[in-house]
Amino acid sequence: MKLVKIARKDANAEGVLVGNDVKIIGSWRHGRADDSPFTLGGKSLDELNTLLRGSQESVPLSSVVLAVPVDPTAQIICAGVNYREHAGEIKAEAPETPRLFKRTIETLVAHEEAIIRPKVSETFDYEGEIAVVIGGGTHRHVAAKDAMAIVAGYSCFMDGSVREYQKHTVTAGKNFWRSGAMGPWIVTPDEIGRTDIALQTFIDGERLQTARASEMIFSIAEIIAYITKITVLRAGDVIATGTPGGVGSRKTPPRWLKPGEVVEVDVEAVGRLRNRVEDEG
Amino acid sequence: MKLVKIARKDANAEGVLVGNDVKIIGSWRHGRADDSPFTLGGKSLDELNTLLRGSQESVPLSSVVLAVPVDPTAQIICAGVNYREHAGEIKAEAPETPRLFKRTIETLVAHEEAIIRPKVSETFDYEGEIAVVIGGGTHRHVAAKDAMAIVAGYSCFMDGSVREYQKHTVTAGKNFWRSGAMGPWIVTPDEIGRTDIALQTFIDGERLQTARASEMIFSIAEIIAYITKITVLRAGDVIATGTPGGVGSRKTPPRWLKPGEVVEVDVEAVGRLRNRVEDEG
Repeated sequence: MKLVKIARKDANAEGVLVGNDVKIIGSWRHGRADDSPFTLGGKSLDELNTLLRGSQESVPLSSVVLAVPVDPTAQIICAGVNYREHAGEIKAEAPETPRLFKRTIETLVAHEEAIIRPKVSETFDYEGEIAVVIGGGTHRHVAAKDAMAIVAGYSCFMDGSVREYQKHTVTAGKNFWRSGAMGPWIVTPDEIGRTDIALQTFIDGERLQTARASEMIFSIAEIIAYITKITVLRAGDVIATGTPGGVGSRKTPPRWLKPGEVVEVDVEAVGRLRNRVEDEG
Repeated sequence: MKLVKIARKDANAEGVLVGNDVKIIGSWRHGRADDSPFTLGGKSLDELNTLLRGSQESVPLSSVVLAVPVDPTAQIICAGVNYREHAGEIKAEAPETPRLFKRTIETLVAHEEAIIRPKVSETFDYEGEIAVVIGGGTHRHVAAKDAMAIVAGYSCFMDGSVREYQKHTVTAGKNFWRSGAMGPWIVTPDEIGRTDIALQTFIDGERLQTARASEMIFSIAEIIAYITKITVLRAGDVIATGTPGGVGSRKTPPRWLKPGEVVEVDVEAVGRLRNRVEDEG
């Protein structure tokens, strides 16, 4: 099932994408989509099927815009340095534990929205990633062997990074306003049917990153186990699982993102997240 | 004015503390306080006075418990290594830019709630800090000379840290579930009337940290200016401004927090945040 947050004029809603139509779940809400809840991300397939049967409105996907499929209260936890090829290119040792940092929703845009190259630095880089969304309940101390059972969905993630500020702190470089993206939707695991999914990043159609989930240093399950030693994961929380080799900053000369370029992150069986780069106004 | 989020049974509310009573602003909401909005934190004094005149209910503070005075959608941005004495004790150079990391609300408890020493490590340390809360509107590229005008309040912050995990990443060490605290309330700047406020941390009554805001490496205004180069600050966002010298991990032998100990963070003209340490259940 493909779960979406959608917006039109001053209203937004949650829904399920069926063919080219969005079946609305619940009702339209006023206000900015990013300030409005997104509750579908953590639901079980049974719950989603029940909600879908209760849907009383359907709108063409073409009549709305997609919003970031994340609740504004959700944690967005990212794992850095999680592929050996990327560790190699940034001259880092493969880490002994997951390397975490956090983003918040202000740093993300939706599918087809512009990602913003900031005023203060031109060292704006792409990182394609597989995002996982946590399912219902509150989870603590989840063993790795049980962890995949709490994954409620997958999405594409562009962990846009301002490398000059990342030298100050990872948090600074990774939290520029509208510098990253997530979407287009969340896809439930039943629809994917495998775990070793492929990840690709394209700039203007040129493939610059490619990897499979099985190449992660810490698997999705191991990252969940590590995080839940530290804190709770709750329905709708997002984990971005790291980027493979091929980032722009490590090319000679560096390949920084420029206004007008189009970044696409393709996650197998999920879809393709597409964002054009614009300069901060 | 002292702004509070309060809870009783299954309901919570926002209010203004007047003497020993809480004047309720708006109405009681059902559900967990941490999942409910906190809108007063970013209001101007004029707005607060208008809301206070409209208050139709008052309850004794003693009849309720305090909740973390933060909206669950707020950013909680912390500045590390922001006092020279602390930089010295952790053998770090004074940084050339603020050193940021993020916490989320799951990592905080309210005044008089227990802070939790985690199962996975006994290296649990205190850090007393001054927190500032951002006022109304959406702020980007605020010059340091203008930045104090967007500070809507002050609070006490206990940036509880699990040092063993902080060696993995700052984010990991600083994001343990209920390992930190904020409160008891937010105090508006008019009630404080100065900016060079004193900060003290006590364990079981023994003073272990003491500093003044003027000793920060990056002032509150400079931290705001730096953050707003990176992203937006919005009403209710929280900035924890760093801890001075005297943390437990740098004593010989290290002075780790133990169950039953009481941590107090005292910010001059704000109040004293008090939390007992408990082991994770």
